[in-house]
Amino acid sequence: MEIREYLAAQQNYFERNLADFLPNSGQYPQILRQAMEYSLYAGGKRLRPVLTLATAEACGGQLSAAMAPAAALEMIHTYSLIHDDLPAMDDDDLRRGKPTCHKVFGDGMAILAGDALLTHAFSAVAQAENLDAQQVVALVRELAGAAGPLGMVAGQALDISVTEIKDPTLLNRIHRCKTGALFSAAVRCGAITARASNLVLDGLTKYADALGFAYQVVDDILDVTKTSAQLGKNPGSDAKQGKVTFVTLYGLDEARSMVHAETQRAVTALTELPGDWSVLQDLALFIGQRSN
Amino acid sequence: MEIREYLAAQQNYFERNLADFLPNSGQYPQILRQAMEYSLYAGGKRLRPVLTLATAEACGGQLSAAMAPAAALEMIHTYSLIHDDLPAMDDDDLRRGKPTCHKVFGDGMAILAGDALLTHAFSAVAQAENLDAQQVVALVRELAGAAGPLGMVAGQALDISVTEIKDPTLLNRIHRCKTGALFSAAVRCGAITARASNLVLDGLTKYADALGFAYQVVDDILDVTKTSAQLGKNPGSDAKQGKVTFVTLYGLDEARSMVHAETQRAVTALTELPGDWSVLQDLALFIGQRSN
Repeated sequence: MEIREYLAAQQNYFERNLADFLPNSGQYPQILRQAMEYSLYAGGKRLRPVLTLATAEACGGQLSAAMAPAAALEMIHTYSLIHDDLPAMDDDDLRRGKPTCHKVFGDGMAILAGDALLTHAFSAVAQAENLDAQQVVALVRELAGAAGPLGMVAGQALDISVTEIKDPTLLNRIHRCKTGALFSAAVRCGAITARASNLVLDGLTKYADALGFAYQVVDDILDVTKTSAQLGKNPGSDAKQGKVTFVTLYGLDEARSMVHAETQRAVTALTELPGDWSVLQDLALFIGQRSN
Repeated sequence: MEIREYLAAQQNYFERNLADFLPNSGQYPQILRQAMEYSLYAGGKRLRPVLTLATAEACGGQLSAAMAPAAALEMIHTYSLIHDDLPAMDDDDLRRGKPTCHKVFGDGMAILAGDALLTHAFSAVAQAENLDAQQVVALVRELAGAAGPLGMVAGQALDISVTEIKDPTLLNRIHRCKTGALFSAAVRCGAITARASNLVLDGLTKYADALGFAYQVVDDILDVTKTSAQLGKNPGSDAKQGKVTFVTLYGLDEARSMVHAETQRAVTALTELPGDWSVLQDLALFIGQRSN
């Protein structure tokens, strides 16, 4: 099967099962549910949950066991987009081709929808029936560590508070926190549900690290080379905000070379491991070439 | 020992140990850490963590084992105050006698400080060394359930979206979600760390339910009877915002009768259980008489 078809199949599996991990819809305020579902079902690529499912499968695990952390990751990712888009932060009106959550539901309800998705992500994992208690604890550690003040929130805090980035090390740090941490958690959570060995977990962590980095550089490249219709969000928004990106820091050609080098690093990290990792390797190459 | 001294001793224990459950301070952005700690150390009463510690002790458990969920509860409570105070929600400038987090750090950083505290609460529990995996999973379920879209966030969503409350049932529902759920989690988490029986857990849940209700009615009474210096926040803010409270709905005398009835219900719920619950019973009576 081509990697594109494989990803579509995993995405399809995820979409079919996601609703099972949301709170029971009869029991909470309709407006809150609508705001949460508006953003959760806005047509994202589901890259993080697909990474979790694909990694679980590559490690010999079951998709059904990987669904809870996959759903949790997408809830956490969606919450971060809702909060980042707020006027108090990046002030974006368009996301995934639709008005952002706060444009539709107001800032207050958007903040709450994000809070609810973040919190419920931990409920979803803690209530999973096909994981043992040790696995759940390991998953909560991964998710909270990657999403919290040492991970994703740290990246966003740096992003909105640092006024001038001249140093590539700082830009790397921001993206490693903002994007890399959750990519890494996506891969590691999949491995944990499949009870992967520490050797495999270490190799997968290197893979995810390179993959997350490549993904972010591609994002910066697309921001200057694509139109709004191709992206589903406003292009050139980085430049408009005067943001330093890998493209402004290194130029387009050098940024493209970085993507190539990082995807190769991701592939190599798995070549060193026992077993067949071709699907995850193809996935890394695919992400390096993505166009939206 | 008088209940007041007992509470002071538990609060003191909590303050001495809280820092151990925060993220390592060298590893995350200083401005984020400052915003989190500004609100976390703003001099709150620590009622929820003290409830957790007191319940653990009443059930024959160890304070050291109860500290992780106690710290998590205070982080979750603090995050909810930071987000509720935002201009997009209740728009409050004063909290615990100090300017609110967003007045000092800006709306964006305040949102992130809240996000970080909420997320790290789950890290704190999942990293606890003196709890087994089953206990951690049970605690994560309690905390995420009480704080999420079926609990605290539901209450706040109703609070900001319902334009007119004529029905006491709706007001009860809002407060049961906004305040009651976390009170209940505080008590239940303490019992879980002490491996309490289901019989005890059920009785404690009834106790916490009555206690949380009494606490909220007292809050509404204090809002109309105390000054800013006594409260540490702006009094009369409910009336200013035209909010329906237990006082506007029932009047002061009836509200005071409700507090009395609810504290008695809390006391009775424990009288029915085997064992000595006098400290928790005194605590309920104390909360019914609190003045700030």
